[in-house]
Amino acid sequence: MQSFQPPRRILMGPGPSDVSPRVLAALARPTIGHLDPEFQALMEEIKGALQRLFNAPDHACVPLPGPGTAGMEAAIMNLLEPGERCVVAINGAFGGRMADMADRAGATVVTVDHDWGLPVDPARVEAALADAPTKVLAFVHAETSTGAKSDAASLCAIARRYGALSVVDCVTSLGGIVVDVAGWDADVVYSGTQKCLSAPPGLSPIALSKRAQAAISGRKEKVRNWLLDFNLLMSYWGGEGGRTYHHTAPINALYGLHESLVAIFEEGQQAAIVRHARMHEALVAGLEAAGLSMLVAEAHRLPQLNTVRVPEGVNEAAVRAHVLKTWDLEIGAGLGPLKGQVWRIGLMGASATAWHVRLCLTALCEALNAQGFAADVKAALAAVDRKLA
Amino acid sequence: MQSFQPPRRILMGPGPSDVSPRVLAALARPTIGHLDPEFQALMEEIKGALQRLFNAPDHACVPLPGPGTAGMEAAIMNLLEPGERCVVAINGAFGGRMADMADRAGATVVTVDHDWGLPVDPARVEAALADAPTKVLAFVHAETSTGAKSDAASLCAIARRYGALSVVDCVTSLGGIVVDVAGWDADVVYSGTQKCLSAPPGLSPIALSKRAQAAISGRKEKVRNWLLDFNLLMSYWGGEGGRTYHHTAPINALYGLHESLVAIFEEGQQAAIVRHARMHEALVAGLEAAGLSMLVAEAHRLPQLNTVRVPEGVNEAAVRAHVLKTWDLEIGAGLGPLKGQVWRIGLMGASATAWHVRLCLTALCEALNAQGFAADVKAALAAVDRKLA
Repeated sequence: MQSFQPPRRILMGPGPSDVSPRVLAALARPTIGHLDPEFQALMEEIKGALQRLFNAPDHACVPLPGPGTAGMEAAIMNLLEPGERCVVAINGAFGGRMADMADRAGATVVTVDHDWGLPVDPARVEAALADAPTKVLAFVHAETSTGAKSDAASLCAIARRYGALSVVDCVTSLGGIVVDVAGWDADVVYSGTQKCLSAPPGLSPIALSKRAQAAISGRKEKVRNWLLDFNLLMSYWGGEGGRTYHHTAPINALYGLHESLVAIFEEGQQAAIVRHARMHEALVAGLEAAGLSMLVAEAHRLPQLNTVRVPEGVNEAAVRAHVLKTWDLEIGAGLGPLKGQVWRIGLMGASATAWHVRLCLTALCEALNAQGFAADVKAALAAVDRKLA
Repeated sequence: MQSFQPPRRILMGPGPSDVSPRVLAALARPTIGHLDPEFQALMEEIKGALQRLFNAPDHACVPLPGPGTAGMEAAIMNLLEPGERCVVAINGAFGGRMADMADRAGATVVTVDHDWGLPVDPARVEAALADAPTKVLAFVHAETSTGAKSDAASLCAIARRYGALSVVDCVTSLGGIVVDVAGWDADVVYSGTQKCLSAPPGLSPIALSKRAQAAISGRKEKVRNWLLDFNLLMSYWGGEGGRTYHHTAPINALYGLHESLVAIFEEGQQAAIVRHARMHEALVAGLEAAGLSMLVAEAHRLPQLNTVRVPEGVNEAAVRAHVLKTWDLEIGAGLGPLKGQVWRIGLMGASATAWHVRLCLTALCEALNAQGFAADVKAALAAVDRKLA
């Protein structure tokens, strides 16, 4: 058994994205204790930075010690008690996961199902809420499995109108498109670190409204999860009056998240969002010039997660294998009903640069040509140049 | 908001322990994708190394993507269904946590309570199992809150005799004293990375017997936890026939765990255990020469977690503050009924060296002298020299 030296990789799949050297360097700083006063100060700074990032000045914001799925599980498990009604909009893999979790919480789950690739339809969600009193409306803002963006503002407004708490999955959206928790008046919003924040996977930032906190502290039954029970977690993360031991925070991972937040605020949140949009437009122009087409209609596309249709007769796995082998480039496969139908190309965080767009188009055209599909790399790169001019 | 530069710290509390430069360096290697073939090979290597570390060649071993508490939660939540009987031996904070989780799983929980500082009494546990058919017996091998070691071999044998599955918390024991999962014939055994493995906190290695796997795959109700449901997790970590996407593994944290495993096998597991025992003996000799006494009876002491009684009239928090301020040294406070009564001094992994023992005694004697308690540092260090001669 020998030390592991990872190969060079350019990460343009659905996450993780490329992690910048400054964030990698932060991970390697010496570990200190999780109850150390200096670590406590770091925790407070992270909490404040997450409030700013989510635009959630009145929410409690903490990074949970697990992957994005831990944020989803925390949201669902803390808000729902057995027998309560939960409406879940499903337009991809992650909506389906939310419904499964709500079932495990003992809730009565009503799903509003959509074809993959479409945004959530507010009218159909409203109809489901109008049917019966509902505790929670859950949906995915940015569906990583399809590349579709849903209208979080409208969906949260519907939840408020019907007295439901909203749970919004922003794993892939945070940092790449506008996430406006206060503007949406959303209740529980969570994300992951390995997408547009460009930190390694393993943490889940989450924001809880005062309404959500009141619902959780007023539960009749215990949360069906000890590690993610907010009634316990908030005493660990709570700033005033010291902290109560709960678990041991993942110190070095939090160094990495902190550094990625410093980097985002240095660039400016708005500037980062504009950069994602620009690189997306350049990539799409290049893909279309190469003869490829997008799965999602233009109005609903996520800049950070581009689902590209696999042309008739092309072996999609062979294309991914080619770009990985020849260009050290990772792009993603389709999931579920989109398996074999699409590639998923991420432009997230540090991977959303013109260099990445050019490399990806170059590699993809080469792989397509090897399969007998005529994709003109010169035309593709020229289209990128025009967009970025 | 600026980059965080942690202060120098010498970690001799209940965890995290000092992380060696080679493990820190591993954390900072470039992130690759969690579905990358090279990462898959790393996962397989970690699984094999954990089987070796636990001595569990026939168990499924994986590192869960959360702190040690995630291992506890996974064990309890996967094995127990509503209404099933669970006997939990409580002799410190972590046994109490297990009972709380079993309650959240819907189990009928029977606790066998002990004074803190004592090992679990096999006779009383056997009496509880003899009372009624029991699905799970849960106990803590190495109680981090008290420094007491329990007899895992006897307790697992009792579980087998009564047809119960055993859950053994080895968070603090693994790597510091003998953990012999095959020899114990234990069912679910979990640990953490931040104790005697000397990696940063954030992962929980876990081992599952074939009996445990059969119980989990034969459940009537879904596990009340999606992220830690082994029926889903095993398809993600399973080597044969490729992997099914479940969550995004914490790549860089796994680099760190892998490197700490390489380091442990380089030193030799047995050699590391002998080192922990020697340093413990040296520390205890020094503490006793300084006029201090241990909470736990000699036969049941954990070498890696030393609970030292606070002498009459000494302000324990002032002593911890002094050693932190003057020596950058972290030692732990007492928890629960031991709050204010003891210090917890860790000798875990990379923190179990003669240098650490000497530094700790020097700092502690100085702090005690400042409080008017005559602790002779020369006598303490001389006692260490004699033990290590």
